[in-house]
Amino acid sequence: MGQTVRFGISLDEKLLQNFDRLIEQKSYMNRSEAIRDLIRASLVEERCGAEDQEAVGTVTLVYNHHVRDLADKLTDHQHAHHDQILSTLHVHLDAHNCLEVIVIRGTVLLVKQIANELISVKGVKHGKLVLTTTGEDL
Amino acid sequence: MGQTVRFGISLDEKLLQNFDRLIEQKSYMNRSEAIRDLIRASLVEERCGAEDQEAVGTVTLVYNHHVRDLADKLTDHQHAHHDQILSTLHVHLDAHNCLEVIVIRGTVLLVKQIANELISVKGVKHGKLVLTTTGEDL
Amino acid sequence: MGQTVRFGISLDEKLLQNFDRLIEQKSYMNRSEAIRDLIRASLVEERCGAEDQEAVGTVTLVYNHHVRDLADKLTDHQHAHHDQILSTLHVHLDAHNCLEVIVIRGTVLLVKQIANELISVKGVKHGKLVLTTTGEDL
Amino acid sequence: MGQTVRFGISLDEKLLQNFDRLIEQKSYMNRSEAIRDLIRASLVEERCGAEDQEAVGTVTLVYNHHVRDLADKLTDHQHAHHDQILSTLHVHLDAHNCLEVIVIRGTVLLVKQIANELISVKGVKHGKLVLTTTGEDL
Repeated sequence: MGQTVRFGISLDEKLLQNFDRLIEQKSYMNRSEAIRDLIRASLVEERCGAEDQEAVGTVTLVYNHHVRDLADKLTDHQHAHHDQILSTLHVHLDAHNCLEVIVIRGTVLLVKQIANELISVKGVKHGKLVLTTTGEDL
Repeated sequence: MGQTVRFGISLDEKLLQNFDRLIEQKSYMNRSEAIRDLIRASLVEERCGAEDQEAVGTVTLVYNHHVRDLADKLTDHQHAHHDQILSTLHVHLDAHNCLEVIVIRGTVLLVKQIANELISVKGVKHGKLVLTTTGEDL
Repeated sequence: MGQTVRFGISLDEKLLQNFDRLIEQKSYMNRSEAIRDLIRASLVEERCGAEDQEAVGTVTLVYNHHVRDLADKLTDHQHAHHDQILSTLHVHLDAHNCLEVIVIRGTVLLVKQIANELISVKGVKHGKLVLTTTGEDL
Repeated sequence: MGQTVRFGISLDEKLLQNFDRLIEQKSYMNRSEAIRDLIRASLVEERCGAEDQEAVGTVTLVYNHHVRDLADKLTDHQHAHHDQILSTLHVHLDAHNCLEVIVIRGTVLLVKQIANELISVKGVKHGKLVLTTTGEDL
């Protein structure tokens, strides 16, 4: 982290009151942190729109582990991309359903492609990718 | 609009540089306006999550006007909700395709329901709802 | 439109019941139309991710028309892109607030850029872009 | 899982060709699975809009572990909701940045509230919640 700088912003009193109410409800300790989060979120969103940017993705999958060959296929896909897949978390939701979160690092394009490969496996009931930042420059 | 108030926020220099680059690219004249837009967007998003809040929605439809009864059905739905539908814009995209934007005002729940009715009409190729604010308190 | 083709899909009975409930709630007349809409929405989403694709966008703006020079600036931006801007709809929300919907046609990249120019104008309280299709191939 | 049922859908040949291209690109083995995924995604989206529904959420956080008290605060929040928090995955992105994925189970409302508590902690650079299903009925 570099130097901390400070600047002022002006806005309508009523707007500020509404914002203060929102950030209290979202558990923020103060406005600065809430606004920094809005700024960082806008930067992450921008970057994740550029396919050649380095990013980290987390794919959340829910699947029925009784489906034939499903676990093997998911493992095969992950090994085929072992350079990009950093880690995996597995949760048993009930007797049939599992949740798996796979953390992937690479270009936005590659992260999306690996996520699609995992989500499209037969037996995966729901899959969703979140793209985030490597944390640098934020 | 009420009184204008002013407050300071502090953040990392590098983060600020990245934000300044982003807002220049998005054509903002200054940081204050960019941050006010982030604040207002977060408020609009919050409110549109509450189904009993008053909101304005714009539904964008693309459809093939040759489909039998389509135009009539769209008109019927709009008349059935004439209290909520404020206005409609029609654009001829090519010999077959039309774009229509319908502006709806009501509770979030009602706006969504009317949007669904319009989007689900046979022959509508694509439909999407944007929820926004009535402008008060922002 | 070309030839109509037909194919079968198989799925779990319980899943189908839940889907039938959802599409009834969304006012669909039958499953085929609901599934075609899901298919078309997935195609539109894919295309709008590619910046060089031709697309149509609708930008919804809410603004306070009392803000100095605001209306002039919005008009200036629109004239600067008169080749891309197809039409504009204006609604008076109350004594102060206006809603404007601007329909833009061009590459995804250009539509986004014009939308950003409009949304970033000082006095615009909320702005949102919907990207849709020109209707061809759907 | 219950009985498998089968039904036919009809659509324009050109639309089907475009869809076949898209699902190949997304690594689907066949149309049925791709359409089942669209159906399930629409059901998950619907349910996660209702705050009293049971859901599972995964929160992805990126943070700088050097920030004072940050790790303690995150742990405190998680312990305060130990009934809802099923598991946590931690990845060291570089010398400064960590990624953490927290799996939460509860009503949509409660999952969102816990996610907000975690995302708003000072030092968390980016946080995002994905809402998914418990897997039942899908």
